[in-house]
Amino acid sequence: MSYRAELIAVGTELLLGNVANTDAQFISEKLATVGVNVLYHTAVGDNPERLISVIDVARRRADLLIFTGGLGPTYDDLTKGVVCRALGVELVFHPEIVEEIQHYFDTVFRREMPECNLQQAYQPAGCTIFHNPVGTAPGCIFEKDGVTVVMLPGVPRECEYLTEHALIPWLREKHDGVILSHDLRIFGLTEPQVQERLADLMNEAVNPSLAPYAKTGEVMLRLTAKADTAEACEELMAPLFWDTRARLGEFLYGVDVDSLEQRVLQLMTERGLTLSAAESCTGGLFAKRITDLPGASAVFLGGVVSYTNSVKAGALGVAESLLAEHGAVSAPVARAMAEGVRTLTGSDLAVSVTGVAGPDRDDRGNEVGTVFVALASAEDTVVRQLDLGTGRGRVRTAAAHHAFDMIRRYLTGLPL
Amino acid sequence: MSYRAELIAVGTELLLGNVANTDAQFISEKLATVGVNVLYHTAVGDNPERLISVIDVARRRADLLIFTGGLGPTYDDLTKGVVCRALGVELVFHPEIVEEIQHYFDTVFRREMPECNLQQAYQPAGCTIFHNPVGTAPGCIFEKDGVTVVMLPGVPRECEYLTEHALIPWLREKHDGVILSHDLRIFGLTEPQVQERLADLMNEAVNPSLAPYAKTGEVMLRLTAKADTAEACEELMAPLFWDTRARLGEFLYGVDVDSLEQRVLQLMTERGLTLSAAESCTGGLFAKRITDLPGASAVFLGGVVSYTNSVKAGALGVAESLLAEHGAVSAPVARAMAEGVRTLTGSDLAVSVTGVAGPDRDDRGNEVGTVFVALASAEDTVVRQLDLGTGRGRVRTAAAHHAFDMIRRYLTGLPL
Repeated sequence: MSYRAELIAVGTELLLGNVANTDAQFISEKLATVGVNVLYHTAVGDNPERLISVIDVARRRADLLIFTGGLGPTYDDLTKGVVCRALGVELVFHPEIVEEIQHYFDTVFRREMPECNLQQAYQPAGCTIFHNPVGTAPGCIFEKDGVTVVMLPGVPRECEYLTEHALIPWLREKHDGVILSHDLRIFGLTEPQVQERLADLMNEAVNPSLAPYAKTGEVMLRLTAKADTAEACEELMAPLFWDTRARLGEFLYGVDVDSLEQRVLQLMTERGLTLSAAESCTGGLFAKRITDLPGASAVFLGGVVSYTNSVKAGALGVAESLLAEHGAVSAPVARAMAEGVRTLTGSDLAVSVTGVAGPDRDDRGNEVGTVFVALASAEDTVVRQLDLGTGRGRVRTAAAHHAFDMIRRYLTGLPL
Repeated sequence: MSYRAELIAVGTELLLGNVANTDAQFISEKLATVGVNVLYHTAVGDNPERLISVIDVARRRADLLIFTGGLGPTYDDLTKGVVCRALGVELVFHPEIVEEIQHYFDTVFRREMPECNLQQAYQPAGCTIFHNPVGTAPGCIFEKDGVTVVMLPGVPRECEYLTEHALIPWLREKHDGVILSHDLRIFGLTEPQVQERLADLMNEAVNPSLAPYAKTGEVMLRLTAKADTAEACEELMAPLFWDTRARLGEFLYGVDVDSLEQRVLQLMTERGLTLSAAESCTGGLFAKRITDLPGASAVFLGGVVSYTNSVKAGALGVAESLLAEHGAVSAPVARAMAEGVRTLTGSDLAVSVTGVAGPDRDDRGNEVGTVFVALASAEDTVVRQLDLGTGRGRVRTAAAHHAFDMIRRYLTGLPL
């Protein structure tokens, strides 16, 4: 059986533009992995009449209704009451939920549980309760008149936890067979270029299927198969996987990794190598991204953000004469920065980034988007010049991407 | 007159969880500033039948329908065709739009315009066209049978541009009077603490109104008034503004600024002071955030990411004996880092951050969330110890917030 799902977010804060409905994206992506078709997303405010009308519409066009939000303890948290009234389901008091909430207040909030939280212990009659160890609002699932109804808390952390640990396992059990997928991460090709290389595979393949996902500055493809067992899924995917891999060649930087920096951290950790960075136009973004990852401290020794020439000279030892002759945005300075930070930190590898992020061109007339990236190792230093277009944020992100990719290419023996 | 709006996003990528519907958030927030009530958000796939059924539902419950997405040149871009068919409106060919698109291809893409883009030159009969200088899909607005219909491209940059430059001005003209608002940014109080101080004002005030917006690690309040003129709005807001300001005291860090780092950059620029940073657990996040802002180079000289003790000693001159005796996460080391980077860069002020971001406690048994922040100036160095809870990302963000706030407090004469 395959569900037709509608996600219904309840909360006036969504309609005021206070927050984005990231729950809908998270749940949708997870539902796709268990073969549930999501047909509609709806958001409605904390208003009983409008919520009832939304429920009436949804029941006619979907058979899996997933509500998010409005499960809190305050007067405007009305999802449970309104949904149960609309569907003719009783609410039943669960003393064991009171104990869970009490425990959460004792251990996490470390204060007394207010009376109003008792409201969260009422659940639809006959439902399966999704116990919530990361908050006070349990979720639930039940069936009524041919419609399966799910309620999840709106706080993203709680919603995501219960989706992954309760809803998806529940749906997976209902599903005949297994759905598996692999994410292929690509850097150095645009989405149209990827589509050109893979058009026939992306259009023809149904099971397994191959679909592109948009990411900032890179491309991701998801390869998905449905079969009776995980092994059968892998077997189904193998020919398409190897064909895709061969066509993407050196631009495929990883399978089932999250980012270029994660791939770089993986490769450096495997080889026991250390890294440092000298950043001008990225201003700490490279260092920030690699130190976002747990385990970075075994690889990344540190770096210098040399936003001015005096820091390039003083901290990195870039010769004043180089800066005077070529300017800060130049290949010789990029080279000296990478070598300087490598010497300063004693790391095995070092990268540098210097360029014009904008909004204005630099005092030497270099255009916005002109960026030099260098990679220094014990053997030599390689510098690449890039033209990254405009937009301060985009230029900085792309420059950091290229620095990570240069390390990845070096470590896997590809031309830089 | 006041519209009841429904936002309808068209695109299968939303239902697959490929992207979040950030357009809905952006448009909703802007509509609130011109007094439009948003009652529903809907998302539907690139499917004509389901889109038609969504339009039928929306016409019955809203009188301003804003479609986003599906205005591109390919076969699955079906919004314009389906909406016009459902409402009985003709599509009319506009040669001047072809010229605009041609111009966009000549100057931005620098390649030939494909035949299929001609499709974007068809617009609903009698509509006002929203010309699009940042892409190839124009938007439009028209009225039919008492319903006002808007179509906007789905690419966030284009959607945001046309919302700000075409839709909102159009609605503002329709609207009797003016709506103005001010954003009050608060750091150092939790949202419940803010509500405790302002409960009576937030509950009672209608025009002007005072409402909280959620932000990571800080709190924002929006003060809004409606009146005949901008001056009258300001007059209406003044008493509530001054009362709110007095109650928030030193925790109100700025009005109509975007972030703590923007406020710091403002204050430093006004005073002609320079800044540097030595970062351990934030790993470049502080530097990244201030260099996100255009104009940072006049203030921020640079810094050192000293992720290991050897870089703390080598680049910042932190005495090995201090590191051995107190460990890297300690007040004496935070002090030495701030003073070291100040000496290295010659900046007027310098901050340092050292702490345990997690996931694990450090080798001296310091708990995750233990962070030291120091501020060094010509006169002295002040160190603060913080307990920022758990979660690697949260600890890093909060630590950088505190470093910026320490500078803000120093520059405005508040106790550190």
